[in-house]
Order: sequence, then C-alpha cells, then structure tokens
Amino acid sequence: MTASTQLLRGVVPPLLTPFNEDYSVDTDTLKRQAERLIKAGVHGLFVLGSSGEVAFLTREQRKEVIATVVEQAQGRVPVIAGVIDMTAPRVIEHIEDAVALGVQGLVATAPFYVRTHDVEIAEHFRLLHEAAPETPIYAYNIPVSVHSVLDIATLISLAKEGVIAGVKDSGGNDGYTRALISARNKAGVKDFVVLTGSETTVDFAYLAGADGVVPGLGNVDPVSYVKLHELLVDGAYAEAAELQSKICDLFTIVGVGDGTRMGGSSQGLGSFKAALHHLGVFPSGLMSRPHVALNDEELAKIHEIVDAAQVIEP
Amino acid sequence: MTASTQLLRGVVPPLLTPFNEDYSVDTDTLKRQAERLIKAGVHGLFVLGSSGEVAFLTREQRKEVIATVVEQAQGRVPVIAGVIDMTAPRVIEHIEDAVALGVQGLVATAPFYVRTHDVEIAEHFRLLHEAAPETPIYAYNIPVSVHSVLDIATLISLAKEGVIAGVKDSGGNDGYTRALISARNKAGVKDFVVLTGSETTVDFAYLAGADGVVPGLGNVDPVSYVKLHELLVDGAYAEAAELQSKICDLFTIVGVGDGTRMGGSSQGLGSFKAALHHLGVFPSGLMSRPHVALNDEELAKIHEIVDAAQVIEP
Amino acid sequence: MTASTQLLRGVVPPLLTPFNEDYSVDTDTLKRQAERLIKAGVHGLFVLGSSGEVAFLTREQRKEVIATVVEQAQGRVPVIAGVIDMTAPRVIEHIEDAVALGVQGLVATAPFYVRTHDVEIAEHFRLLHEAAPETPIYAYNIPVSVHSVLDIATLISLAKEGVIAGVKDSGGNDGYTRALISARNKAGVKDFVVLTGSETTVDFAYLAGADGVVPGLGNVDPVSYVKLHELLVDGAYAEAAELQSKICDLFTIVGVGDGTRMGGSSQGLGSFKAALHHLGVFPSGLMSRPHVALNDEELAKIHEIVDAAQVIEP
Amino acid sequence: MTASTQLLRGVVPPLLTPFNEDYSVDTDTLKRQAERLIKAGVHGLFVLGSSGEVAFLTREQRKEVIATVVEQAQGRVPVIAGVIDMTAPRVIEHIEDAVALGVQGLVATAPFYVRTHDVEIAEHFRLLHEAAPETPIYAYNIPVSVHSVLDIATLISLAKEGVIAGVKDSGGNDGYTRALISARNKAGVKDFVVLTGSETTVDFAYLAGADGVVPGLGNVDPVSYVKLHELLVDGAYAEAAELQSKICDLFTIVGVGDGTRMGGSSQGLGSFKAALHHLGVFPSGLMSRPHVALNDEELAKIHEIVDAAQVIEP
Repeated sequence: MTASTQLLRGVVPPLLTPFNEDYSVDTDTLKRQAERLIKAGVHGLFVLGSSGEVAFLTREQRKEVIATVVEQAQGRVPVIAGVIDMTAPRVIEHIEDAVALGVQGLVATAPFYVRTHDVEIAEHFRLLHEAAPETPIYAYNIPVSVHSVLDIATLISLAKEGVIAGVKDSGGNDGYTRALISARNKAGVKDFVVLTGSETTVDFAYLAGADGVVPGLGNVDPVSYVKLHELLVDGAYAEAAELQSKICDLFTIVGVGDGTRMGGSSQGLGSFKAALHHLGVFPSGLMSRPHVALNDEELAKIHEIVDAAQVIEP
Repeated sequence: MTASTQLLRGVVPPLLTPFNEDYSVDTDTLKRQAERLIKAGVHGLFVLGSSGEVAFLTREQRKEVIATVVEQAQGRVPVIAGVIDMTAPRVIEHIEDAVALGVQGLVATAPFYVRTHDVEIAEHFRLLHEAAPETPIYAYNIPVSVHSVLDIATLISLAKEGVIAGVKDSGGNDGYTRALISARNKAGVKDFVVLTGSETTVDFAYLAGADGVVPGLGNVDPVSYVKLHELLVDGAYAEAAELQSKICDLFTIVGVGDGTRMGGSSQGLGSFKAALHHLGVFPSGLMSRPHVALNDEELAKIHEIVDAAQVIEP
Repeated sequence: MTASTQLLRGVVPPLLTPFNEDYSVDTDTLKRQAERLIKAGVHGLFVLGSSGEVAFLTREQRKEVIATVVEQAQGRVPVIAGVIDMTAPRVIEHIEDAVALGVQGLVATAPFYVRTHDVEIAEHFRLLHEAAPETPIYAYNIPVSVHSVLDIATLISLAKEGVIAGVKDSGGNDGYTRALISARNKAGVKDFVVLTGSETTVDFAYLAGADGVVPGLGNVDPVSYVKLHELLVDGAYAEAAELQSKICDLFTIVGVGDGTRMGGSSQGLGSFKAALHHLGVFPSGLMSRPHVALNDEELAKIHEIVDAAQVIEP
Repeated sequence: MTASTQLLRGVVPPLLTPFNEDYSVDTDTLKRQAERLIKAGVHGLFVLGSSGEVAFLTREQRKEVIATVVEQAQGRVPVIAGVIDMTAPRVIEHIEDAVALGVQGLVATAPFYVRTHDVEIAEHFRLLHEAAPETPIYAYNIPVSVHSVLDIATLISLAKEGVIAGVKDSGGNDGYTRALISARNKAGVKDFVVLTGSETTVDFAYLAGADGVVPGLGNVDPVSYVKLHELLVDGAYAEAAELQSKICDLFTIVGVGDGTRMGGSSQGLGSFKAALHHLGVFPSGLMSRPHVALNDEELAKIHEIVDAAQVIEP
C-alpha cells in the first residue's frame, strides 16, 4: 500500500458529522462539506475522528458516514477512517466495515477503558494489522481520550514490522512530535508519516519535519490551512507563523462555551459547528446527545470571532 | 420495577468470561461457574462488567454471555448486565439487547473517551432510562476506566427522578461510598441501592450502610463473600473484619504478575482466571487478546496463595 | 524511644494555627486551644501539620508554635511536630529546631517539588533519622500535597530498620490503610503505629486495626472524636458508625466555600477557623495570606451546620 | 527596572550547583562554570532553579550560591535567582536575601504543597512584588513540580499591574507558550518577556515570538544554544531546526539513567553533571542527597553521547 501511504500528507481535516433534527446523519451536508474541503485543496479526508463525534455514532451510522464520503471523494483525495473502540476485537469489526467500504487508510487508538501496557498496545496494533494487511493503519496518539501516551520506541518498532504506516499525534506536546520524527529518521523507516493533530502549532510540527496536519478547525477554514501548508513546504517559516497566529485567533472560539455548564467536547465541537452554521455551510449546529448546546450569548461571541477572521470560502 | 430493585442486595459477583482456545466464549464453563456461584448462595449475578472483559467482547459475544447466564439462572437470582460503551447512542444498543434477553437490571458508566461534564452525564443517564424505562439502571462509578467520578448530588438527583436505581461504586474511596449512602438517606430515596465494588473493604462499606458488594474475587471464593455478608448483616463487625483480612490475603494474587511486562488488567484478571483454573473450575486461564499471560513462576506463586487460602468449594 | 511511641495512639488533633491581625502567630489562642483539646481528653497534639498552615509559616514562626504548645502541654500528652519541607537538607533544619524544643515525635513527608523515586524516598527518611536518632519519626502519606504515595513495602522496610516509628496516613484510601496495617502485622514490627488522617472514616480505620486518628475537624469537636475512639476501642462498631455519621454532617462545612473563587485550603481551613470563631474559641477566622476569606453567606451556612451539630465544649 | 528587564533575553542557563564531597557548595567550580557560560556568550545567568537543585539547598546555601555568581558576573550579564518555596511568607524571606545580594531579577512559582486557586496565585505574586517592588519578578510555570498551570489571563493581568516582568515557561506545551505570547502582544504589555524552559523546542518558541530560553542543557553545551539563538534571531529557521535537532541528540543523555531505580531528577541532573565531569568542567558528578548516582554502564553511555555531540568548549 505504498501508493496510499505516500498520499497521506498535507492537510487532512477530520470531518465533523452533521446531524438531522432526529440525530440521524445529515448525509447531504456531509457531502457538501467534503466537496467544499476538496475544493479548498485539502490533501485527504479523515472521517470518524474525535471531531467527527465517532464516539457517539453507532456501527451503522459510522458505515453511513464512510460510504457517503468515499462516494463523494471519488478517489480525488484519500479517505481515511477512524476505527475507534475499546479493544482489538471490537476495533476489528470497524476495520472490516471500513475496508469493505473502500477507505484508503485506518486510524486506531491504543486500547482504552481497560488498564493496559506498552507490550499489550503493540500486540493490539499487530492484531489490527492482521485484520487488514493491505490497508495502512495510522496510530492515533490521543491521551486526552485514551489516557495513555503511545511510546515512541514501540511505534518505531511497529513501523519497522510494517504494522503501522504512520502516527496521527494529538498529544499536545510538540517536543514529543519532534522526538517521534527524529526517531523515525534515525530508524530509516520509509513511508512512515507523522501528522500533527494540533491546530495551533502546525508551523512547529513542520519545522520539526512533520508530513501533515489533521486540523479540526480545518472544517471551518480549510483555505487557511492549505495556505499554511504551502508556506511551510516552501520554507517561509516567518510568514507561516504569522498566518498560524491569525488562525489561532479563530481557534479561540473553542473557549467561548461556559465550562461550568458543559464539557470540553460541547465547547469545542459546538464552536466548530456554530461557525459552520454561521458561514452557511451547515443547516444547524446540532451535536449528538447529550452534548450541551451553546447559548445565544456564546453564539454571538463566536460569530464575532468568525467574522473578524474573514474566512475565505473555497 | 421495585421488585427487581429490592432483590439487588448482598453478594453479586461480576462473572468472569471464560474463553475457548479460539477466543469464542466458553459457554459451558460460564454456565458451570454461574451454577457454582448460585450454589454458594450469592444474591445476584452481574455479567459483562470490567471483570467480565466486557471491553473486549463484540456485541454478539455480549449477547451470548447474557443469554447463557440468564438461562442458567432461571430466575433463581437476578441477573444484571453491564452495558458498557462510550456514549448514550451506543450504550442504548446494548440496553436493547440486554432487555430483550431478559435481564433484571443494567449497569452503565458515564460517557468515556469524550470530554464530558456532570450536566451531560445526568442527561446521558436520562437517555438510557428512556430506552428502558422498566429496567433498573445502576450507575457504575469506575474512575480508573472512565476517568471521571460520578458526582453525588447528581446521582441523588437522578435517583429522585427515578432514572437510576442504585450505584455500583468501584471508585476505591470508602469515604465517598459513605457520603453517597448518607446523601441517599437524607434525601429519603427509597429502593436506591449502593453496592461497593471493593473486594478488600466490604466491612467498611456495610458499616456505612451499603446494601451489597460486587467482588471480582467472588468468582474465586464466593463462599467467603457470602459468609462475610452474613456476618455483616448480623452486626458481627470484628469477626467480619477478621474474615475480610483473610480474604485480603487471597486478593494479593492480583499483584503477582510483573507490572513491567503487562498491564493491570492482565495482572488482575489473569490471577483470577489462573486461580479458577487451579481450582479446577476453568479449563484454562485464557484471557482475551492482547492480554499478556502470566508465566510459570507467577502461576506458581498464585497457586501457593490460593492453596494457603483453603478456598471452600460451594 | 519506645515510651514515646507507645503513647502516640488515639486522638491526636493537628492544631490549627491562629493568627493575629498582622499575621503573627496568636500564641494566646494557641495555648487556649491546646488546653481545650487536652481537657477534651485527646491523646496527643500534632503541631505544624497541613491543618496548621505549616506551608505558610517561616522557620521562626514554626519554632514559636512548637515552643508554645510544648510549654502548654507540660508533658501531659505527647507533642509531635510536622517538619515539612521539600527535601532532606531542609527538613533536617526543622528537625533540629523541633528536637531542641522538646517534641516527642516528628512527622515528615516524602520529598516534594522534585521528581523522586521509592529508593530515594527510603534514603530520605534514613537521612532524617540520622539527624534525630532518639526521636520517633512518623512518615506522612499525603499525596494531595506531595503527589506521590508512600509505598507499603518501603515503609515496612524502614520500620524494620528502626528508621520510622509509624505512619500518618492522609491518603484518602482506606484499603491502603488496611493493607499497610496488615503488612505491619505480618512483618511482626513492634511499636509501629498507623494513624489515619481521615476525619470521616475513623471507624473503618479502627476496624482494620489502626492505632489512632489525626482529625483536622478534631480542632472543632474534640469531644466527639474522643468518644468515637472510645466506642471503637470497646468494639461498639455500630454505635461508632452512627457517631461517625453525625461527625460527617459537621464535616460538610469544608464544602461550603465557593470553589470557583478559592482553593481547597481556603475552603477547608477557612471553615474550621470559622467554626472555632463561631464557638468563641478563636478571636477571628483569619488565615495566612493569600488564603481567600469566606463571605458572609458562606459563614452563615457554616454557623448553621455548627449549631445543628451541638458541639459539646470540653 | 526597565533596564534590567530589557536585558533578560536570549540564552539564560539555569546554573547547576556543584557540590564538594561533604555536600557543601563547591564555589570554585561554580565560579568557573559561570565564567565559562559568560565566555560562551550567554545573555544572563539563572541561579537556584530546579536544575540548580534549589529544592535541596538550605537558606544559607542559597545565599552562598547567589553571592558567588553575582560576584563572578560583575554585572557583565544579569543574574536572576530562583526564590522557590511553598508560599508567600517563606518566598519573601528568599526574596529579601536575593535582593540584598544584588540580583537583577527573581523567579517564583505558584504556591505548592497547598491546594490553591488562580485568585490566590495572583495574590501570591502581588505579595512577592510588594516585598521587592524594584526587582523584576518572573513567574515560573513548572507544573511538573508545583502541579498547577499558571493561567494566561491571570499572568497578563499581573503584567498589566506591573507585578510580574515576564514568565519562564517550563510547562512543556509549546501551544501554551504561543498563546501566552499572543495574549501579551494583544494586551500591549511592554517589557514583558517570555522565556521557554524547553531545551528541545527553542526554535518553536522563537518562531512564536519568545524572547529567550532557559536551557538546563545549556550548562553542558552553551555554545550551541548561543548559536541557536543567533540563527533564530536572524530568521534562519531551517538551519536553526537542524541545530536544534543535533542538540536534541545530546539531550538524550537525560534518559540513560534507569528509571526503575532512580527518579527523574537523578536521571536528568545526574546526566548533566556527568557530562560536565566528562568534559572536565566539574570535578565530580555529585548530586545532593538522596539523589541516586548513575552507575558505570550508564556513565559510559552518557560519555558516548557527549563525545558524539562534539561539544565546543567556549
């Protein structure tokens, strides 16, 4: 699958999942958004990530999301799918679904809910690879959700075995990202990609040698992320940092929701969906249950920030 | 469902799930173990808890476990089932399965993987209750797995609304257990049960007014837990504490596995299964993948501790 | 020092430190409170614990507190002193001060601020013991402050070496307390005392074999804690649990302060001092800076709870 | 103190504290090392940071360290001193010492050991500033030691009040560093410096607009850090990243010590001191007690890494 792997670089937004009023997946809006991102020049589409509310979707809904986006993409950009579940036997069911639906890659976390260990995490990824030996698997480092950090030596080991094709790093520690890239380079592992999941430090990650970015905020402002990628690939770091800083201003929408009456997911995803609603892309900002909706005052602040950002429509 | 609720008191072991060599559920052994526990005098059976490796079981396997134990129990004791998944839409699928299979109660955690909030957790349990208004739901406080602690005021509020019928508290903080019981008593909520999940402080929990215990180690030595319950109900605290202390010696098997090469789940469940294998109840100590097996030296130590405990077969 | 060690059992309140308006130590009130506690029948006095705001006192102020209480106690009960500082070289200075002032015991934590290890913690206590070989040292398990838990095997090892004379366990985990007591009993270590620091689960600790309690709330209601101790020593567990439950109602004062505008220390110590002011024991509820004072509404609630508790004055 | 403040930019190594065999401060070596760093072109000297084993030094030893380095610096570069202690009343004693000895700035953390709150942390820094209104105070963000993160809004507020002159950020989160700098810029606070404490992501911090770096590893290889600073000031980011990557290779010495028999402080400081010993700068690698010494095998690995780095002597 070298061909697929080489494609997964650049800006790969984790698609939000829009909902109808009855909490079914709004496939029309999902298609429009996929098209809008492709038009903006993104390099891949990542469905069923944390930003896609994967944890709230049933197995059938997950299949619907994949099918919708794969069909819309028509092979123009690779589509990779999150296969997020507690342990290998359950993840493998999602892998089978996703592979059958024609994805170009899979994103899987370490086991969660259970108390685990690096040795077990390595074996976990081997089991996943056995279930889909032809499809690249990207390890998803997301300690805020799974409460463990993927060990760099373990990752490099799995890369050498051909078990994983890369890492999506949402660990929030750019020093870790650099150390991972450095270990990859030293190990001489080819075609092993490192993507940062941080919206606010893309320039740092690229400066350290990262291959791409998976920015939730890229749902709102894909054009800026594509521009940021291009500046960084061109080595225009100072200019890139300036643009990154502007993007960070837009990112402040995630802090508008009142943390005393809602959780971080409601704050973050609520703001992204509110922004897309405000921009006319989404028909509503509805989140899956039991997310808490932003109130009018909060929405007004978010609209103000979005307006100030002058988001360019693709 | 007052009838069901009133029954859920006393010793309610969380059944281990035995596996065949191909990792399918070993239903014969599961039946034998259910029978063995009933014979020992336990007051209920809890399937698909953390001790039952619920996180490693597919939806179909979970159904198989419930069906097997419900059939074996034949109504002699209530069977309650864990419906463990990341969020309400997914938990509700498990609820539908479990209710269709005839369980007498459900055990659900707060949302996990996602960043959440007390307001959202309350709404989460309301959604679950709507999905099964006739079946008691027990809130499962298990911060080691879900990384949040259930808020006592929220729980009492849900109890008053009739949303939850009790709490299974595996929080490891007996002061919390007491505070929860005290809040329940002050609120005058009837038929709201508090069960401790701690194998080693049952006497503390009962002294504070707990209604029962869900001991993983009860799989190995159900007779001692039933005896402990009886002593405590009779107010024979000093004698109970002595028995509890003896049980704690047996519990040290969970610390035998080497933590530098396996996780806590492998250590704990591995030791329980090894003990049952040694006692001739389980045909093997096999755990789901990617658990790490105990080695011969570790098994020998566990056998020694089990032998010293002189476990009485029901 | 067997004599001293044997005396450290029962109720040993950690004395609050009253302040004058200029934040100097109010030694008159400190003496009155020491006298009040002795009159209530407590079995020892612990100065310079967390409840004594030790972290806010300069070296000179600490000496003043010790001198005041040692003089007031006149040997009627043992006085033990906290020697709380980051590492051994600094703790040893406090040890020298305390020993010179005639204390009957010392309470020391693991190193904090620094990243440490069990091997280093053991060596830390050995260094402290070398500095005061004639004075019993009690290891203070207080993870909320030092962010590590004292390892039971290490503690037993230090006990056997004669380095420590006991443990004051404020870890908030009664299962740990039981495991520590059990390990002590199995090791056959004589004169090694285990005191719980939990105000709300004294009955649990005694049921497991604890030797005493160091209750911050004992500053407010020493008579109840002495009565609780007596009931427990007599094996009247059910009656004790009832009294413990009543004490827990009084303990709810620590949750009255608004956590969105003050820290846990302001909430907890503020409520204890407010209660003592309300009872006429302290001339004010002043805490060291930068603690946040409770407001009138909060004080009113605390007064109400204190009045309802009908605290018996010694 | 604008003059002083403006000077605190660039490379400001946190000086290690060398010890004689009797654990007294080795002032001769300390002077030599200060001189060596000045010769390398560093822009300031920071004594009594975590790298300086401040937590292990008595008040008298701290004064000795300050006096030694201030005298050696002779005003050629500013000397700033850590005033690390649990709470304001104790920190203020260290402030008085440091100011009397002529330092050009002070570095203070949030309160630790105690449970605190942003409101209290702000008041804490105000109390410190009152104690030394003429000396710039830098807030030290070091959650690994104090277990709280300095809130950005609070810091900006304190900057506007003139209470703090900058931040030394050892939080390990470069996104936070960027957000802090961005907030500073938006607030229009003049002369408020942000220094990163991360040895391995200096390029990231500068790209985001940081004013300097406080690198523990700068004790070993000051020349490279000065060169890195110059490249970054010149906007040569790609070249800087390459040098940074080389420095990261040297930084791997901190991971050589075996974490199963020593803590992180022993690993990290032990490796720095071992490197300086190997380079002939320090007469030994002795750390304060109870640090665990690296063994011969570990030392050999460290020497190998240091040799490979070809550290240039100033």
